[in-house]
Amino acid sequence: MIQSKLFSRTSKNISKEEISLNARLLIKGGFVDKLAAGVYSLLPLGWRVVKKIENIIREEMEMLGGQELFLPTVHPKKNWEATGRWSSMGEDLYKIEAEKGANFVLGPTHEEVLVPLAKKFVSSYKDLPLYVYQFQNKFRREKRVKSGVLRTREFLMKDLYSFHADQKDLDDYYEKVKKSYGRIFQRCGIGEKTYLTYASGGTFSKYSHEFQTLTPAGEDLIYICEKCGTAVNKEILADQDNQCPQCGSKKLREEKAVEVGNIFKLGTKFSQPFGLFYSKENGEKQLAVMGCYGIGLQRLMGAIAEVENDERGLTWPTAVAPFQVHLLELDPRDPQNRKSARQIYGILQAKGIEVLWDDRAGKLAGEKFADCDLIGIPYRLVISKKTLQSGKYELKERKAANGKLVSLEELPEIILKGRG
Amino acid sequence: MIQSKLFSRTSKNISKEEISLNARLLIKGGFVDKLAAGVYSLLPLGWRVVKKIENIIREEMEMLGGQELFLPTVHPKKNWEATGRWSSMGEDLYKIEAEKGANFVLGPTHEEVLVPLAKKFVSSYKDLPLYVYQFQNKFRREKRVKSGVLRTREFLMKDLYSFHADQKDLDDYYEKVKKSYGRIFQRCGIGEKTYLTYASGGTFSKYSHEFQTLTPAGEDLIYICEKCGTAVNKEILADQDNQCPQCGSKKLREEKAVEVGNIFKLGTKFSQPFGLFYSKENGEKQLAVMGCYGIGLQRLMGAIAEVENDERGLTWPTAVAPFQVHLLELDPRDPQNRKSARQIYGILQAKGIEVLWDDRAGKLAGEKFADCDLIGIPYRLVISKKTLQSGKYELKERKAANGKLVSLEELPEIILKGRG
Repeated sequence: MIQSKLFSRTSKNISKEEISLNARLLIKGGFVDKLAAGVYSLLPLGWRVVKKIENIIREEMEMLGGQELFLPTVHPKKNWEATGRWSSMGEDLYKIEAEKGANFVLGPTHEEVLVPLAKKFVSSYKDLPLYVYQFQNKFRREKRVKSGVLRTREFLMKDLYSFHADQKDLDDYYEKVKKSYGRIFQRCGIGEKTYLTYASGGTFSKYSHEFQTLTPAGEDLIYICEKCGTAVNKEILADQDNQCPQCGSKKLREEKAVEVGNIFKLGTKFSQPFGLFYSKENGEKQLAVMGCYGIGLQRLMGAIAEVENDERGLTWPTAVAPFQVHLLELDPRDPQNRKSARQIYGILQAKGIEVLWDDRAGKLAGEKFADCDLIGIPYRLVISKKTLQSGKYELKERKAANGKLVSLEELPEIILKGRG
Repeated sequence: MIQSKLFSRTSKNISKEEISLNARLLIKGGFVDKLAAGVYSLLPLGWRVVKKIENIIREEMEMLGGQELFLPTVHPKKNWEATGRWSSMGEDLYKIEAEKGANFVLGPTHEEVLVPLAKKFVSSYKDLPLYVYQFQNKFRREKRVKSGVLRTREFLMKDLYSFHADQKDLDDYYEKVKKSYGRIFQRCGIGEKTYLTYASGGTFSKYSHEFQTLTPAGEDLIYICEKCGTAVNKEILADQDNQCPQCGSKKLREEKAVEVGNIFKLGTKFSQPFGLFYSKENGEKQLAVMGCYGIGLQRLMGAIAEVENDERGLTWPTAVAPFQVHLLELDPRDPQNRKSARQIYGILQAKGIEVLWDDRAGKLAGEKFADCDLIGIPYRLVISKKTLQSGKYELKERKAANGKLVSLEELPEIILKGRG
């Protein structure tokens, strides 16, 4: 991508009203724009990050046997009355009226649509298990919206739902999803800081689980077991008698964290109100047992931004960075410079490496370096009169203090290696 | 994909309330499900079709220099008041109230969000032209919703917006988009039946253009010039004095059609209320000139379904079909059959061919053939005791009357050739 054509610009000074670190970093770098309290646009750079996250998650969902679909965001009132959530979630729901008294909910989640839909296709034990997922907008009538993209009125969510013949099959699948979620956060570069956290389980299960990423900006408090590394959230700490539910140790340390995913055994909570029965091998009717598994996409991007930054800007992990290489052309008016930049841009792209080429004339070297740090692409590659004289190019990792001079021949290999 | 695991099922008998041909075909084949009037879920098969359409459009948008982003669907009231559309489109808008009297619109289109956003980044003639697009849900408070997926309360739309320094630059780009749209409908398999149609242009341009696909179910009437093949819509026929605006001929024939895309020169209609000025080379301030270009994704799928079907079901064009090959295993309980099916499934997939494998036991051959015709995948490949004895497999194109026996060696090449 040619930076002079890029829609967004970096900005040094942004509104003091925006107090969250993730939003400040993402707005400065040109990844998001704030439209209203709790409502953000994803600009081309931010959309690239979200798409990378989405693709990582999609690969993992496919490995779990998930089938992708796309459910409406507009849900009939009667579906939400069937589960009682029209009233119980009343204040948290956006409600709209279509023609002639037809009332709808803007979906904050999709059980109320998916379960009656599954009922049309599931009749026998042979139809189970079944796993479906989507990436779709969710709407939540949030009261507090001071956490940037971590908590918004509207956001993209990956929601996976599983349907099983019995509890044992749900339990087995749940463990697979738990591992899959671990891989997702690992691949997104925040594996080290993300903890499997015990949370309360509702009617059908003692526990549910959250994935919590440590950050000083986190809205949640979690308690990490010093012995086994499992965590519990505040909500259930007292229930646990201040003990790790995994290993029993009492040495727990408190940390601030942000929830980046949650998995939940729903049991028959939703199959019951919609009558999602199936016939067992002996002909007996039984309710299907369900699980649900969510990850908010902008929230995950925000959590990565909270963790991966320094005083100069963002420091994206390679797998979710908008580009792998930021090519800075320091003297764009010099024909040799331009020729060399165009050549390298072509060579790297031909190798499948994504490059943002700062070709802007009229920008000082210092401004280009500062923008490059704000945006936080993993590799910075500098072309200047100086590097051209040496016949080499200066390659610097975003997180490294210093760069090194490399030849054109070495370049792609080093970058591809860094991508892992 | 293994059909026994597929979420959806075909259905022979569907509600008589669903009167539109596209929805009847798509529901029977298991592509969509009707949640409420004008609200449809995209099931895994339907989602695959929409994703193929999306990818074709994305390739064309990238060739037009478009940058993809993702704007919120929840828009502040004040943006819609700025353009006067809070009142003028009042009855067609869904309005929601967030906390403390904060009113929002669910976006039926995105000028009200994008133009003030562009204002943050556009200041000089050097920043123009600029092209951005997205695939995002749109909401319209439709009164008539009897056309299946052609007209719904909520749908995915590709919307491209262009920003230019002057009318000449817009005019040139507009012609490029016109050609690009022609390619999109060609690639989606409805090029022959889709007509560039003159429509009224609003304040800033004499004409806008629609792309209209001929179908007896179409809500629109268009008038096609027998001489040059250009069409005009009913709205402007009288203004034109019943004459083709392209070549002047008066021989026009009336046809029913459905609008699958539209392109529009907005001029300064939206840059004016938001003050989207840029500085010219001489320092003078001038309003940016805009164009907008839309395609509804479910609507395009519906139009293809209206055009591509026969009395037995759908007949998808290869480029948008959910799979390229429907592999029917007629005797799944026979070990030879199963072995052969698994082998072919593996070979075809390794060649990058997408296969739906009907591995279902307990289904009669006739049921499998009928389902195969309903779903409408371009190639049907049959494995049975009979074909195994001949050492060949029966390959039939969905639209052909008869199949032919082909060897395993020939198979991938024939299918890949058909894909074009």
